[in-house]
Amino acid sequence: MGLALNKDELSQYLAEVFPQVHKDFVVEALDEDSITMRLVVADRHLRPGGTVSGPSMFGLADVCVYAMVLARKGRQSLAVTTNSSLDFLRKPEGGKDLVATCRLLKLGRSLAVGDVLIYSEGSDQPVARASMTYSLPPAGSAAAKYG
Amino acid sequence: MGLALNKDELSQYLAEVFPQVHKDFVVEALDEDSITMRLVVADRHLRPGGTVSGPSMFGLADVCVYAMVLARKGRQSLAVTTNSSLDFLRKPEGGKDLVATCRLLKLGRSLAVGDVLIYSEGSDQPVARASMTYSLPPAGSAAAKYG
Amino acid sequence: MGLALNKDELSQYLAEVFPQVHKDFVVEALDEDSITMRLVVADRHLRPGGTVSGPSMFGLADVCVYAMVLARKGRQSLAVTTNSSLDFLRKPEGGKDLVATCRLLKLGRSLAVGDVLIYSEGSDQPVARASMTYSLPPAGSAAAKYG
Amino acid sequence: MGLALNKDELSQYLAEVFPQVHKDFVVEALDEDSITMRLVVADRHLRPGGTVSGPSMFGLADVCVYAMVLARKGRQSLAVTTNSSLDFLRKPEGGKDLVATCRLLKLGRSLAVGDVLIYSEGSDQPVARASMTYSLPPAGSAAAKYG
Repeated sequence: MGLALNKDELSQYLAEVFPQVHKDFVVEALDEDSITMRLVVADRHLRPGGTVSGPSMFGLADVCVYAMVLARKGRQSLAVTTNSSLDFLRKPEGGKDLVATCRLLKLGRSLAVGDVLIYSEGSDQPVARASMTYSLPPAGSAAAKYG
Repeated sequence: MGLALNKDELSQYLAEVFPQVHKDFVVEALDEDSITMRLVVADRHLRPGGTVSGPSMFGLADVCVYAMVLARKGRQSLAVTTNSSLDFLRKPEGGKDLVATCRLLKLGRSLAVGDVLIYSEGSDQPVARASMTYSLPPAGSAAAKYG
Repeated sequence: MGLALNKDELSQYLAEVFPQVHKDFVVEALDEDSITMRLVVADRHLRPGGTVSGPSMFGLADVCVYAMVLARKGRQSLAVTTNSSLDFLRKPEGGKDLVATCRLLKLGRSLAVGDVLIYSEGSDQPVARASMTYSLPPAGSAAAKYG
Repeated sequence: MGLALNKDELSQYLAEVFPQVHKDFVVEALDEDSITMRLVVADRHLRPGGTVSGPSMFGLADVCVYAMVLARKGRQSLAVTTNSSLDFLRKPEGGKDLVATCRLLKLGRSLAVGDVLIYSEGSDQPVARASMTYSLPPAGSAAAKYG
């Protein structure tokens, strides 16, 4: 099974559906089973001491898995986060972007699961691990949202 | 074991340590084993369709457990999120604040665990469930950060 | 919405579908939103030192949420665990049964979510916290298994 | 940092500390950052329909991360599971062993984190994903158990 959207098409679609935040995120690489995205770290992502905030790391992991699902299922697809788990492993380096790679572990009829490792740019020690489950309601079924 | 900080002292301390975001969060109630906090929902917390974003709900749950730990351990205490798990259950109601209640399940020597239910104000059906683990390094041990 | 199975009907059904393990588990209490079950701790559940094993606690939490879903949806219902999260909080007391209470947080069209606190009998300090998501495939859809 | 125990030493130590269950588990491969273990599936691991039970998969993931920590820290080390998260992705194949590979993501002073993918032998589609956090109390500190 191939990609429904290539890297450029995916980037353009994310800009349309996330007008508020799409400039935070850049798609760096994409293939059928994985995606790499960058969080362009700005002041609003930081906590005192220069650490990237937990919600910013959650957001990066969430967007990463969502973008992977869109790339496979295409523009019309619906996808709602139903579950997430994160381990915070190390303090991110101040002033560095975060780079996240998602592996698509399952793309089923109604559920998709991906896991993510997040690194400070240039480091090979992950700052966080995440896994995310998305519910994939049938197109048009407003009632199906959130399972 | 009692509270090290009462509700007013806790609110003042959160304003000091979270200057960027403390206006988002209000401590509504506090006792030895639980805390209730409100996320004052503003445009920056929303996604298209009026839904409160996932990172905003993560942030609310995280602050809630952190504030509970501070209330018990006091101002000097260090606490670093090491793990979180969230279930997104229902779509939050547009235009409503979110109200979260944390139960402190464990306050050990080196780890604290709390779980959280989040509701749209006025509803009795939770929009999300979360659990958070905090590492509690000995005071002064910079090296102990993130376990 | 009421119960599809009362406590006796549920106990009988669990004995049919879990012939290998049903004697480990006893339904202690049941209402529309919660269930309490006991793990009758035997040697096979123990680890050296008398601690109840992690897999035994996982199994208790899993059965607890599954039984709650069955009690609401009835005998014909299918339900497959898709996600679980557990926090191990304290060492269980040797020689004591474990008692678990599940709250049903969501019973949707396609997903059910419950959380569980597990106690050593007679203690008011939880030994573990768990949350479980079940996928509820339409009856008859073998292909729907695991989403 | 190297291994404190090689594959044979680790296998021997697991046999000593898990007399009840060590025959279920075989160490297949070990290096500084990862370990592969096999669950020799027997009747007691199965559910009706031939599926491997959830507790058995939990146990495999848990032993896998524990063995990885032991291999790095050595025989005297203490390690207690404090958190776990599992996604069940596909139905395991009946009559096949399960093979699990753990990546050690963090081995800190007080916490270790690993994640695990579990496969039915011979398949390249994972049946489950897990992550586990272990607390590493200082040697001799009985009080430090469970953080």
